[in-house]
Amino acid sequence: MQPMAHRLGELAETLGLSVEGDAALELTGLAGLEDARADELSFATGPRYAKAFAASAAGACIVPPDFESQGRSVLRSRAPYADFARAIPIFEPRAAPAPGVHATAVVASDATLADDVSLAAYVVVGGRAEIGARSRLHPHVTIYPNVVIGADCEIHSGAVVREGVRLGDRVVVQSCAVVGGEGFGFAATAGGKRTRIPHHSAVEVGDDVEIGSNSTIDASHPGEPRRGRSSSRTWIGNGVVIDNGVHVGHGVAVGEGTTLCAHVALGGSTTVGRYVTFGGASAAGNSLDVADGALIGGMTGVVSDVEPGQQVLGFPAVERRLFGRISVAWKKLPELLHRVRRIERQLGIDRE
Amino acid sequence: MQPMAHRLGELAETLGLSVEGDAALELTGLAGLEDARADELSFATGPRYAKAFAASAAGACIVPPDFESQGRSVLRSRAPYADFARAIPIFEPRAAPAPGVHATAVVASDATLADDVSLAAYVVVGGRAEIGARSRLHPHVTIYPNVVIGADCEIHSGAVVREGVRLGDRVVVQSCAVVGGEGFGFAATAGGKRTRIPHHSAVEVGDDVEIGSNSTIDASHPGEPRRGRSSSRTWIGNGVVIDNGVHVGHGVAVGEGTTLCAHVALGGSTTVGRYVTFGGASAAGNSLDVADGALIGGMTGVVSDVEPGQQVLGFPAVERRLFGRISVAWKKLPELLHRVRRIERQLGIDRE
Amino acid sequence: MQPMAHRLGELAETLGLSVEGDAALELTGLAGLEDARADELSFATGPRYAKAFAASAAGACIVPPDFESQGRSVLRSRAPYADFARAIPIFEPRAAPAPGVHATAVVASDATLADDVSLAAYVVVGGRAEIGARSRLHPHVTIYPNVVIGADCEIHSGAVVREGVRLGDRVVVQSCAVVGGEGFGFAATAGGKRTRIPHHSAVEVGDDVEIGSNSTIDASHPGEPRRGRSSSRTWIGNGVVIDNGVHVGHGVAVGEGTTLCAHVALGGSTTVGRYVTFGGASAAGNSLDVADGALIGGMTGVVSDVEPGQQVLGFPAVERRLFGRISVAWKKLPELLHRVRRIERQLGIDRE
Repeated sequence: MQPMAHRLGELAETLGLSVEGDAALELTGLAGLEDARADELSFATGPRYAKAFAASAAGACIVPPDFESQGRSVLRSRAPYADFARAIPIFEPRAAPAPGVHATAVVASDATLADDVSLAAYVVVGGRAEIGARSRLHPHVTIYPNVVIGADCEIHSGAVVREGVRLGDRVVVQSCAVVGGEGFGFAATAGGKRTRIPHHSAVEVGDDVEIGSNSTIDASHPGEPRRGRSSSRTWIGNGVVIDNGVHVGHGVAVGEGTTLCAHVALGGSTTVGRYVTFGGASAAGNSLDVADGALIGGMTGVVSDVEPGQQVLGFPAVERRLFGRISVAWKKLPELLHRVRRIERQLGIDRE
Repeated sequence: MQPMAHRLGELAETLGLSVEGDAALELTGLAGLEDARADELSFATGPRYAKAFAASAAGACIVPPDFESQGRSVLRSRAPYADFARAIPIFEPRAAPAPGVHATAVVASDATLADDVSLAAYVVVGGRAEIGARSRLHPHVTIYPNVVIGADCEIHSGAVVREGVRLGDRVVVQSCAVVGGEGFGFAATAGGKRTRIPHHSAVEVGDDVEIGSNSTIDASHPGEPRRGRSSSRTWIGNGVVIDNGVHVGHGVAVGEGTTLCAHVALGGSTTVGRYVTFGGASAAGNSLDVADGALIGGMTGVVSDVEPGQQVLGFPAVERRLFGRISVAWKKLPELLHRVRRIERQLGIDRE
Repeated sequence: MQPMAHRLGELAETLGLSVEGDAALELTGLAGLEDARADELSFATGPRYAKAFAASAAGACIVPPDFESQGRSVLRSRAPYADFARAIPIFEPRAAPAPGVHATAVVASDATLADDVSLAAYVVVGGRAEIGARSRLHPHVTIYPNVVIGADCEIHSGAVVREGVRLGDRVVVQSCAVVGGEGFGFAATAGGKRTRIPHHSAVEVGDDVEIGSNSTIDASHPGEPRRGRSSSRTWIGNGVVIDNGVHVGHGVAVGEGTTLCAHVALGGSTTVGRYVTFGGASAAGNSLDVADGALIGGMTGVVSDVEPGQQVLGFPAVERRLFGRISVAWKKLPELLHRVRRIERQLGIDRE
């Protein structure tokens, strides 16, 4: 496809930014400072990019209000990276699926479809399910019975939403994510055998949530803690973003605005506060409390409660700065053993 | 939906438990001790819940035979948590999919369907496959050729069962699980190039197995160890339960009753015994032996054989109690470095 | 199914190997040395298997040119394991899906299908997509618009290839893998709110690549580093093999011949060189450089750049031999604490 050209002045207007320099400049794409060509728009977020900005071949850049323009064409922005993000769809528009229900979609007769929904080929919608206005379901999405999906959601091919799950508005579910699969919990019978605890209390997902490809969010059972809410269900708050391959166990609550990076695993009945970040491949055990604003580092294993705003790293997780000091010392461990042996020899201490 | 009320006396009869107190009490739901309301059933498993029991607003509780009832309405049980689990479907019944083959199911002409199977919309069943009595396949399940599925299985939307796999009776496969994908193994050619070893020897799964959402169990090749069985195939024993996002490599054998928690990864050709537990996000390398009754902690990396009943933690995995002591000392490492330096100074030892 | 018998002489001819011993010997299967029966073919790769070879009941073995045959029937090979791999399909042939487009496949009118493609039941192919010669798409594969798939690819049930992705020739995509899902990246607005950076720059995959079940390879945004290439897209080089449950973040580049074992996670914008190996459940952070030939051990967390050919282990990752020495010392940590305390006592040092 031929890229479409946009004049810098038009871009400024579309993005609501002021322009300095050549407003007639034609741009055909976007790139980082090091890679951008003369017909590409780039961005710099602050003074530490001044050198890369000076060396860049970019035709124009989005820069902060007080950034030295060095005589180049710039757009002024109080959030250059966010405005660069807003410029992407101008250069690389995405075709939204057309509204309508494909002839091959199998929709239960008692399901409710709001206006302008888009149900692609081979979408299946179960009994008494409700799909909100303008929500788009890509091919091969399965919606089990009694699911409620809000407005302006997008659900990608292969995703599965299990019975009774509620999704808010503007929720994005990537491919092969499974929302509401049966939680993993067992009890011992009087005879000592393992029996399944039915985990069918459906998951509740807030507004503006994103759930990554191949992630799983499990249903709970009614004996899970309610945490002051009216139900004990697995709960994902508004604005939570979940990357690929993440596991959220039965009865977990994840507070507003929290971030779960790729391959995170949260054990059953754990509570995660608001604006928490779990780094890639980190995990938390069962029935823990991770408070608001906590930062869990990558590959970290949380085995006890985490305080508000606490930053932890390692396994078992310790305070972040302590982890840094431990890591330095840890690398010197073999040497430390030798030093202690030398001291013992000097003191005539027998090795056990 | 309006919750249905159940009298405590009826519940006692249904569950086969004796009742003490108000048998006419009407209950409409279940909850944990802290959350339960006056019209809800709860449970306590032993004396350490006596205080929470006393403070609970629950209308009635399932408690052990010798538990002090404090004058409240109780059901007596030798396994209160398991009986609570049995009560869940009474209050929250699940509609089973109706038997029958949906008009859109594509079933090979030489496949065999037993009585009362349920094949939902867009299920695909390959050539010479066999589906056992009363097994339920949800929408968009793919069964490759030559698969044999036992009786009373349930396979959820998006799950894939690859060619030749055998599932026993009462197996549950959650959504987007892949049973029998090609194992990951390569050999070097005489010219030093990497060549694929075909891993198409189909997986064998026993009875009462559960396989979580997005989990993968790989097929093997005929040169894998047979471990005294007639075949070298990847093998999952009876009663094994597997949580979400678990990987079971080619040629792995998992013994009866073993538990694999979320995000576990088992390397190719490894043998796992009976009643082993792998905690969440733990892993084992290739060609290892993890013996009966072993307990592998969460986030633990097993790199050598594990003895029967051994409990290990950490990476590399060490005996559980040792890990506890190491963790305590590990947190003191920065301080230990200083202490050793002070000793060296006092002794006039030059730092290298 | 009745196994088919093959004479050793015929096998030698088919595989292009020389035979010593009983060329008329009939073989019906393959197995490792310890398990093989008199009618089975096995293999030994070198002298350290001489004892197992001597004890084996195998009817015949593939062995190196200079391996002592001990009077047994052998096939001579310079790569016995690779030739054993080549023998597998002779004994266990796989039926390839027949060419043709199933009546239920939904193919956009402007999609292009090359000769002899195989599109199974319920395959969906989006607008302007191209499927190369002899490529086989199993049931329930979804190809989004503008995708280009090369020749001789095989894509298994439930896999999803998102908009614009390009796959080379002979690429294998296992079930429920998601290629080209939206990358996970956000920017802060001027008001401090989190905004999505659109990650729709499609993934590029080379020839002879294999992508495991439930693995995810994310799309990038145009501000990612280009690394000297013409585009900043997520890029998987020729001959890369990716096991199950692997996550490759937005804008990652993976060089030719690299191996990603099960459950690996690569953070966004990271560059991985040629012939690198990431062991099972290892991970790398964002924007790192892992150079050619590096070996990342299992469960290892890479948080800084890795040099060419460097071998690292642990979290944070350290040089492999150092990790071995650290691990030995780490297990002695509790004892070391005691030894230092004893020294302090002897020197009259007060504990803080």
